[in-house]
Amino acid sequence: MTSPEAREEAVLEAIRQRREQVNEAIPEELPIQRPERLYEASRYLLDAGGKRLRPAVLLTTAEALGDVDPLSAEYRSFTPLDESGPVDVMAAAVSVEVIQSFTLIHDDIMDDDDLRRGVPAVHKEYDLETAILAGDTLYSKAFEIMLDTRAEPDRIVEALDVLATTCTKICEGQSLDVTFEERTDVSPEEYLEMVEQKTAVLYAASASLPAILLGADEETIDALYGYGLDIGRAFQIQDDVLDLTVPSERLGKQRGSDLVENKQTLITVHARNEGVDVDGLVDTDDVDAVTEAEIDDAVAELEAAGSISYANETARELVEQGKDRIELLPDNEARDLLCDVADYLIERGY
Amino acid sequence: MTSPEAREEAVLEAIRQRREQVNEAIPEELPIQRPERLYEASRYLLDAGGKRLRPAVLLTTAEALGDVDPLSAEYRSFTPLDESGPVDVMAAAVSVEVIQSFTLIHDDIMDDDDLRRGVPAVHKEYDLETAILAGDTLYSKAFEIMLDTRAEPDRIVEALDVLATTCTKICEGQSLDVTFEERTDVSPEEYLEMVEQKTAVLYAASASLPAILLGADEETIDALYGYGLDIGRAFQIQDDVLDLTVPSERLGKQRGSDLVENKQTLITVHARNEGVDVDGLVDTDDVDAVTEAEIDDAVAELEAAGSISYANETARELVEQGKDRIELLPDNEARDLLCDVADYLIERGY
Repeated sequence: MTSPEAREEAVLEAIRQRREQVNEAIPEELPIQRPERLYEASRYLLDAGGKRLRPAVLLTTAEALGDVDPLSAEYRSFTPLDESGPVDVMAAAVSVEVIQSFTLIHDDIMDDDDLRRGVPAVHKEYDLETAILAGDTLYSKAFEIMLDTRAEPDRIVEALDVLATTCTKICEGQSLDVTFEERTDVSPEEYLEMVEQKTAVLYAASASLPAILLGADEETIDALYGYGLDIGRAFQIQDDVLDLTVPSERLGKQRGSDLVENKQTLITVHARNEGVDVDGLVDTDDVDAVTEAEIDDAVAELEAAGSISYANETARELVEQGKDRIELLPDNEARDLLCDVADYLIERGY
Repeated sequence: MTSPEAREEAVLEAIRQRREQVNEAIPEELPIQRPERLYEASRYLLDAGGKRLRPAVLLTTAEALGDVDPLSAEYRSFTPLDESGPVDVMAAAVSVEVIQSFTLIHDDIMDDDDLRRGVPAVHKEYDLETAILAGDTLYSKAFEIMLDTRAEPDRIVEALDVLATTCTKICEGQSLDVTFEERTDVSPEEYLEMVEQKTAVLYAASASLPAILLGADEETIDALYGYGLDIGRAFQIQDDVLDLTVPSERLGKQRGSDLVENKQTLITVHARNEGVDVDGLVDTDDVDAVTEAEIDDAVAELEAAGSISYANETARELVEQGKDRIELLPDNEARDLLCDVADYLIERGY
């Protein structure tokens, strides 16, 4: 029996090892080229860090499907299930990270956030024009990079379909998120639907794309898509919890910024149902003006209403459901790692 | 021998007939769905009008390749050259128009333009957030719609590759355009390279996509791509001329706005080479403050320097080159129409 600490240590190490390979692949797939300023701005957030959780899920899923030992396969020429020509699953991993980065750049403009990953947002470091264009460039580059996987044409077509519909859903989710800011009657179900579109679909794409590219059956593709939706929703709920509980320095942005900016989270949706005056929790709507004491008081009130526990429990249920879904995968170390990654998403401290 | 007037009349009628069919297809491919505000904003410019020149080129190219009488084929189930399963070339036509619309929405934000097609720009009619998201939604929808063509998988893969690289080049061209605003030493060659990326590649995609989707040979695909690059550059040069010469009401925006906003055009690049003080032509950099008299004086000076004639001649040469390229197509009415469309792009009055 492994201790929880040893298990977390192991999953962090597994993510780190894949992150290193993803970090090497990013400049290969997205070199700085003319016009340099555009490509530098496009790479700015990618180079600033990031945990690469989605690529890690994608690569580990490929390993589980291929029934190979973790890290034993060459990601750039991965053998499909029917042993047709090799598939570059690393290109797919970079593609989803590039989509993630594009959405962060445009989201930061929309929210006028100053900081991301501890560095200025792209529209602050560069300017609005460059940030819009950098996001747009990453958008089409993600499709170009997915085409680099060299999978069978019908599988690439399906993969690009997933990528395109995923991007559309992210936009729809973001749009719902914006309209929710002006509403006080959002139900937990509506919130979770929004999170599914805004966040979870990219996890679902990450988990199911290797199955598509490597030629798995529909049942497996669907199960992995469902796993991704579950852990992606859990990830966002945990993100909302961390926004309240992790020190600003560690978050890379002001703690409690969601509350200040009146963002709906599962926590505030629950608290409102419990009669908490959520809009009165923080007086200012300027992240630069809020005090740590104000955030502390707000968190205490949300804890008293049981809202943070409710969020934690919901995330836990989603993770368990996601883990159940992938029982149909071959029983191997990579599958165990997918379960551990799911646990990690809600146990992580930042 | 047909008179020039009768020929222009005929080409306008041919574009109009295709436009009507494209206008019917747009709501089919891009229905208003939840979240409604997002989709309404996405459709706003598409519904405000537009000549649909790129879709018209795409549909006419399909007709020329298929060697069918103009308008005789059902665009929704077009027979490929090898008579494999029917291809929905209308979906491809809508896809390029959707890309065009996405770029207009984001460009208007970047230039902070107020008007487009005689109506407020999307970020003015809605807001910045919605406009960014509406553009992003159209971006992925264009890929989804291209997937609706139902062509053979290897052809769809190639078509999506063209679409993605086209979008990347448009971003690169737009980025160059922005940096050119701060330079006074842009050469005509550099300007034309920028225009190729910013504008002409979408014409090149429109002309070559039917060849890809219908299974034409590489030589034909390349020739059509070249035709599109030529007429697309000519189109942009003519647009720059029209910005100076067509009354504001007819343009749907302030005449001379390129001069006011210090946009480089082939005209200003030439004029600067001829020693004209281009930056001194208009004093203000506020399109709302400029007078018609100021624009008239500026145009007179540019005419005196031979810059407008130079632009007209360059556009004419490009059109002739483009027409030469498509001589390898079957000799039919649709091919003649592609030549007439090329002429129309530089003969049009707005």
